[in-house]
Amino acid sequence: MEENRQVFEVDEDAYGGMNVHIKESMDSIKFIALLRASISQWTNQGKKGVWIKLHIEYAHLVNDAVKEGFWYHHAEATYLMLVYWIPQTPHTIPANASHRVGIGALVINDNGEVLVVQEKNGTFKGTGVWKLPTGVVDEGEDICDAAIREVHEEAGIKAEFVELLAFRQSHKSFFGKSDLFFVCMLKPLSYNIQKQDSEIEGAQWMAIEEYAAQPFIKKHEMFNKIAEICLAKKENKYNGFSKVLMTSAFSTKRTYLYYSQNS
Amino acid sequence: MEENRQVFEVDEDAYGGMNVHIKESMDSIKFIALLRASISQWTNQGKKGVWIKLHIEYAHLVNDAVKEGFWYHHAEATYLMLVYWIPQTPHTIPANASHRVGIGALVINDNGEVLVVQEKNGTFKGTGVWKLPTGVVDEGEDICDAAIREVHEEAGIKAEFVELLAFRQSHKSFFGKSDLFFVCMLKPLSYNIQKQDSEIEGAQWMAIEEYAAQPFIKKHEMFNKIAEICLAKKENKYNGFSKVLMTSAFSTKRTYLYYSQNS
Repeated sequence: MEENRQVFEVDEDAYGGMNVHIKESMDSIKFIALLRASISQWTNQGKKGVWIKLHIEYAHLVNDAVKEGFWYHHAEATYLMLVYWIPQTPHTIPANASHRVGIGALVINDNGEVLVVQEKNGTFKGTGVWKLPTGVVDEGEDICDAAIREVHEEAGIKAEFVELLAFRQSHKSFFGKSDLFFVCMLKPLSYNIQKQDSEIEGAQWMAIEEYAAQPFIKKHEMFNKIAEICLAKKENKYNGFSKVLMTSAFSTKRTYLYYSQNS
Repeated sequence: MEENRQVFEVDEDAYGGMNVHIKESMDSIKFIALLRASISQWTNQGKKGVWIKLHIEYAHLVNDAVKEGFWYHHAEATYLMLVYWIPQTPHTIPANASHRVGIGALVINDNGEVLVVQEKNGTFKGTGVWKLPTGVVDEGEDICDAAIREVHEEAGIKAEFVELLAFRQSHKSFFGKSDLFFVCMLKPLSYNIQKQDSEIEGAQWMAIEEYAAQPFIKKHEMFNKIAEICLAKKENKYNGFSKVLMTSAFSTKRTYLYYSQNS
């Protein structure tokens, strides 16, 4: 019994990984003693991966874990996840998140006009380019919902998701991470623009042809192709992917599958 | 001149962010002195975000940075990125990567058979379910290339990308992160299966109808829908997204846009 009190409490996952969650402050001496005793016991038990989730308030233990052979797996604002692999074989630790996800919203009104904005910051600042509303998909947010949210935030327009038109994958867009950008078509449910002042310089309804004819758009192959898709969509000559809510017999998760329903 | 030697060397980014990259070992006393002098100077200069990229060998400085008000932005195996916001306004630090990206490969041969595998580990271990080859997209890897790589790794089959058929977004799939899973259709360029022994229990060509009729597939709405798309694709009654390489006047980046070319 005495010996059991000297190892960390853990949750064991389905892959034999031991998950340590430090819940109380401790000094390096106690942390290292517990860690060594725990690893020793788990080695004897044939365990494999060891995860330590260290809240930022326990940052003083990061160096101790690293000195014991742990490395970094990922971090969020309030914690650092460290990982260690017990066997002599190559580790099978899953990869960290690799992509940021963004959306662009094509909102076409009944007059065949598209909602466009000018941004106060970023690449297009001061260029006079009118662009589709864009934004980053929040953690845990559906792509379709992110498009609706950004259109409402940037221009005060309520809208509903119609179709996913296209997407782009690019690399090394920030800190070596990759980027997925989804162009979503939305149907507006309101028409009076109320632009957000902090990020948006201007917002208006513009003829799609005028949007597509901007020199910046014409010069840039991808923007030009997306503009062509917008023009085709206005004429009902393009079919993207619909979103369909999927249920599962195995979990209560709500998951969207995006696929073509017009083929 | 003396004063200048007491602040960190930095790269300034386009958003006024100061990027500190610690390149030599130092003790806490020197690190804290440099950090305080740097922040003081940058505050006077009206700078905003401060980034410190700390290699894992400098883990002893993590706690010092946290005590000075830094928090975690992200981490990879060999480094931790810390961040600090100088102004009194809410920060506009960009979000961390939020999604892991995976692929499933639909490889159909000239006999209308699909390449299927049984895995040695994971959810389907020991279930007897034959599934499409799947895998995780590496950092910096194109979705189309990941599908080709996984099919070759798991079954020794060479193939080329044809079309993106559908994708699924799900949430809280690991460590609270989200997941994007892309179903890619490939055309096989070789036919003799050589399965990978470490991860794959079995691999074979199977009639698509037989694949689709598996009770596990029928019971699970999303697998069933994907199987329906596979059957439709075999009959040429489904149009997904093609990949088209885009060039840019503004950078040398190669970027794929995925969209419908059959509308």
